[in-house]
Amino acid sequence: MERRTDLALEARELFGEDIKGVAFEEEERENIHITRLKIKNDQAGRQLNKEKGTYITLELPPLTDSFREPDERIKVISEEIRKLLPVNGLVLIAGLGNMEITPDALGPKSAGRILATRHIKGDIASATGLDKLRPVAVVATGVTGKTGIETGEYLMSLIKKIKPNAVIAIDALASRRLSRLGCTLQISNTGISPGAGVGNNRTKLTQETLGIPVIGIGVPTVVEASTLAIDLFDTEDIRLSRKLRSMVNPSGRQMVVTPKEIDLLINRASELIALSVNYALHPDLAISDLLSLMY
Amino acid sequence: MERRTDLALEARELFGEDIKGVAFEEEERENIHITRLKIKNDQAGRQLNKEKGTYITLELPPLTDSFREPDERIKVISEEIRKLLPVNGLVLIAGLGNMEITPDALGPKSAGRILATRHIKGDIASATGLDKLRPVAVVATGVTGKTGIETGEYLMSLIKKIKPNAVIAIDALASRRLSRLGCTLQISNTGISPGAGVGNNRTKLTQETLGIPVIGIGVPTVVEASTLAIDLFDTEDIRLSRKLRSMVNPSGRQMVVTPKEIDLLINRASELIALSVNYALHPDLAISDLLSLMY
Amino acid sequence: MERRTDLALEARELFGEDIKGVAFEEEERENIHITRLKIKNDQAGRQLNKEKGTYITLELPPLTDSFREPDERIKVISEEIRKLLPVNGLVLIAGLGNMEITPDALGPKSAGRILATRHIKGDIASATGLDKLRPVAVVATGVTGKTGIETGEYLMSLIKKIKPNAVIAIDALASRRLSRLGCTLQISNTGISPGAGVGNNRTKLTQETLGIPVIGIGVPTVVEASTLAIDLFDTEDIRLSRKLRSMVNPSGRQMVVTPKEIDLLINRASELIALSVNYALHPDLAISDLLSLMY
Amino acid sequence: MERRTDLALEARELFGEDIKGVAFEEEERENIHITRLKIKNDQAGRQLNKEKGTYITLELPPLTDSFREPDERIKVISEEIRKLLPVNGLVLIAGLGNMEITPDALGPKSAGRILATRHIKGDIASATGLDKLRPVAVVATGVTGKTGIETGEYLMSLIKKIKPNAVIAIDALASRRLSRLGCTLQISNTGISPGAGVGNNRTKLTQETLGIPVIGIGVPTVVEASTLAIDLFDTEDIRLSRKLRSMVNPSGRQMVVTPKEIDLLINRASELIALSVNYALHPDLAISDLLSLMY
Repeated sequence: MERRTDLALEARELFGEDIKGVAFEEEERENIHITRLKIKNDQAGRQLNKEKGTYITLELPPLTDSFREPDERIKVISEEIRKLLPVNGLVLIAGLGNMEITPDALGPKSAGRILATRHIKGDIASATGLDKLRPVAVVATGVTGKTGIETGEYLMSLIKKIKPNAVIAIDALASRRLSRLGCTLQISNTGISPGAGVGNNRTKLTQETLGIPVIGIGVPTVVEASTLAIDLFDTEDIRLSRKLRSMVNPSGRQMVVTPKEIDLLINRASELIALSVNYALHPDLAISDLLSLMY
Repeated sequence: MERRTDLALEARELFGEDIKGVAFEEEERENIHITRLKIKNDQAGRQLNKEKGTYITLELPPLTDSFREPDERIKVISEEIRKLLPVNGLVLIAGLGNMEITPDALGPKSAGRILATRHIKGDIASATGLDKLRPVAVVATGVTGKTGIETGEYLMSLIKKIKPNAVIAIDALASRRLSRLGCTLQISNTGISPGAGVGNNRTKLTQETLGIPVIGIGVPTVVEASTLAIDLFDTEDIRLSRKLRSMVNPSGRQMVVTPKEIDLLINRASELIALSVNYALHPDLAISDLLSLMY
Repeated sequence: MERRTDLALEARELFGEDIKGVAFEEEERENIHITRLKIKNDQAGRQLNKEKGTYITLELPPLTDSFREPDERIKVISEEIRKLLPVNGLVLIAGLGNMEITPDALGPKSAGRILATRHIKGDIASATGLDKLRPVAVVATGVTGKTGIETGEYLMSLIKKIKPNAVIAIDALASRRLSRLGCTLQISNTGISPGAGVGNNRTKLTQETLGIPVIGIGVPTVVEASTLAIDLFDTEDIRLSRKLRSMVNPSGRQMVVTPKEIDLLINRASELIALSVNYALHPDLAISDLLSLMY
Repeated sequence: MERRTDLALEARELFGEDIKGVAFEEEERENIHITRLKIKNDQAGRQLNKEKGTYITLELPPLTDSFREPDERIKVISEEIRKLLPVNGLVLIAGLGNMEITPDALGPKSAGRILATRHIKGDIASATGLDKLRPVAVVATGVTGKTGIETGEYLMSLIKKIKPNAVIAIDALASRRLSRLGCTLQISNTGISPGAGVGNNRTKLTQETLGIPVIGIGVPTVVEASTLAIDLFDTEDIRLSRKLRSMVNPSGRQMVVTPKEIDLLINRASELIALSVNYALHPDLAISDLLSLMY
């Protein structure tokens, strides 16, 4: 796999649009281009280098162009999330990634704006009706290099303790194209395999291993420089690909790039995700009320 | 208890210097005034409003006066921490408090500079000798209002999973005196009872409940305004205390204050704690090497 | 002057409510208590330890209690600012203070959200009507200890170059009371004498020296600990005041305190000021449009 | 000019290595590859698309690989800066760029660590010898879009007021190659033409217009995506270049990219520049003392 992408949509572009066992639909709503890709079996998954399951891709106008998405667009995104969630019960939100690396801060920044409600109990809560809110717990998992704990271990222990009905994991993704950064949102129900490989005993978190839905939400924020180069030459030639790779990464280290406007992109994308998740979890509240609770 | 303090040293000043069942020693090393206070039984503990156990208070020159403490002072602090730790095995570091509230950010800021080593395994690690480092895991627990999870629940589930030999919890403290802020460090082995009371089912983490040492490290960063007032009048008169309290807190809400220089204080104190803990855990490394790994 | 305050309202409380040459009015609008204090001559100024001129104090509900002030309240504040401004022409906004010291960051944080428009020129601007906006320039002056330049020198040189019709300087203030922090806004037309005294050649910026209005906007964020103490004892006795001062500041250094919630207070107050100033300068724009331009 | 670079070294690579009127020397010191390029006349300048004058390029090991450069390397860089400075008198340091855009924050971040000394006067200063330090003033100019003031106007007015003997302007640069980001430092004496063109009345600041040396210091932090693409194809063909440009920038907007590790890169590079400038200005102080004054 010479070209890296975390987007199932791009994997399909790259590895074949008519693979058997893959269903594909498109739709347009509120100026969002929605793609639903379903990988029905493991063989199709291997061909696309992706886990079996459903991937929803939402292509929006560039997030950095507007201050805030219109409410109608938030509602469309929320609805896609809600479809993958159980109708009630505790939801655990996990913000994955590193707060100190701007393009990797999407997870913790989004999590920081999602309303935790699991602890709201007691007389005041019942008097104000706050105890009727769906219970939500929120964590930022940090990264293994800073915690010494794998994201999987960490979430697994917490899940055992607080017993959620579903997990939503938010993380920054890699795309093959600069033009997809900051205007694409992927929602999937295929679980998490966190970390780019610290040893090989990584804990995979999926509906199969946990018995509850594990929903991933991500926005691409980075592109590998060599993927960019290979894409430009549009080549399948492995020798040329290798050569391009070594031109782009003269030191042998893979260069990964992000747009100059990454700070703004992360701010906008994390607010969009947090607001959409909050509305998916509390559809009885007004979006304006959710917003004022978030700050 | 009209006057609030998290420092055992101040509790002794306030509630009696000759309570039975309390041992007290003082020492001077490297310009640090060290006080060792041992509460030997529950009755003495109730009189001082503190848990049974050992409290070591280190009074230093103001942290904001110098760029960095001299190495010799770091060594004195490290030694006090090391005395309370088991000689080997995994240590879990927990940074308690809220990163977004400067005077409460001591825990997460310190934790952010403590070296996690538990995950360092494999060929490269053994070739470089890094796998010989004492295993350390590090988490910032966040605050219940933002996570929906109590610090106790959170740590308990993680302890069950990764089975450390000891826990070190770092947190900001309240003092009765402005003059103690930013120049006092308390180290105790009396466990953690986190949160100022979200419900009454708080999980207490102590050596008794967990079977492993639970070491607390803290620096006072705040003072209650009413404690300040009552101290000024040096009064035991409860009516006067109440009146002062209502003068200082006209809205009925307790005002808690922190020095204007709190940003600098937190930066200096968190580096001091992180460096001392790192050296306590890895005494074979040079302090200068630890420092360069921290940034 | 044993008790320090930057609020003219408090100076009047402390030094006399019936000084000759001082006019005083009160008004209530949109749940804001508005006080207008006019010091008519230098003698009255000396008695109150304040410059001659007009001081408007707005007492609001605690800023940290709500997410954002209602539009009607923004309009009241804007109107008070607008009354002191010339009807048209360039306005220079100066954010005074130190971004790295949270309680002193009000000036630069507010300035960071005020819309600069002076540079908007050319075909696109005239096609979109943006060139019709009132010209505004915005600077954060930094602090002398970090720049080597006095705020007065700095502003004076800029004023000479860009020739504004008025200056608005935003700065954090000291109050005598904790209860005034974060719910009081002072607007004055009495100029700026920046810096607590680096040498004695400080440049004073006033309408007299500059020939243009110099408007100050501030929110109290700190209280001197000794002022707090002397206030509690409500004493005029200088010996007792001295004793209290030395009790509160045992090291001889003046302790200045700020509330534990200072981060939130600064965020809310700087947004309030920025939005009010933006609306005062561009009354034809909707408040919601101004808000989206600010982020 | 289809390929954009701010490095004179790269301009020479691109537009010709044997242009008349260009002198070129190389040297190796302390593991730094030093290149000295002198553009002797305007004609050569036009061919290289660069101002007449001296450009020194220092190629270092990747800044993100080590915690801090060794002292000997700092001394080499300082010496290159010192050669371009007058032997004494006030120096004005200007940090150019936008603090809120990480890859553009090099200027303000570096400036924030440079010691301002111009204001240090009086008895204490002369007793401690601090008044013997070379006078230095430091400003972060902000960006026109946020201030409404052009960098040139701003610096010009300040220079008129404080009359420095030299200006050092620090700014982030664009390179043609990813591999040059974060390991290259350019020092020049060719002045500043700030801003990518807000109108055409930009103030150029050069030794000619100001009568004092204007030294630029920069580190490349970004690359244009289309420059990257054209470089990969190594083409002079303008049609192909145009095609590549449109493939890389499908929306018509120029994409500019930065490495994923940009936060760390900016931290390291700004400390390196600040320390080198501080040592160039105060060669009698020890590097370790300068470092502790910087934090």
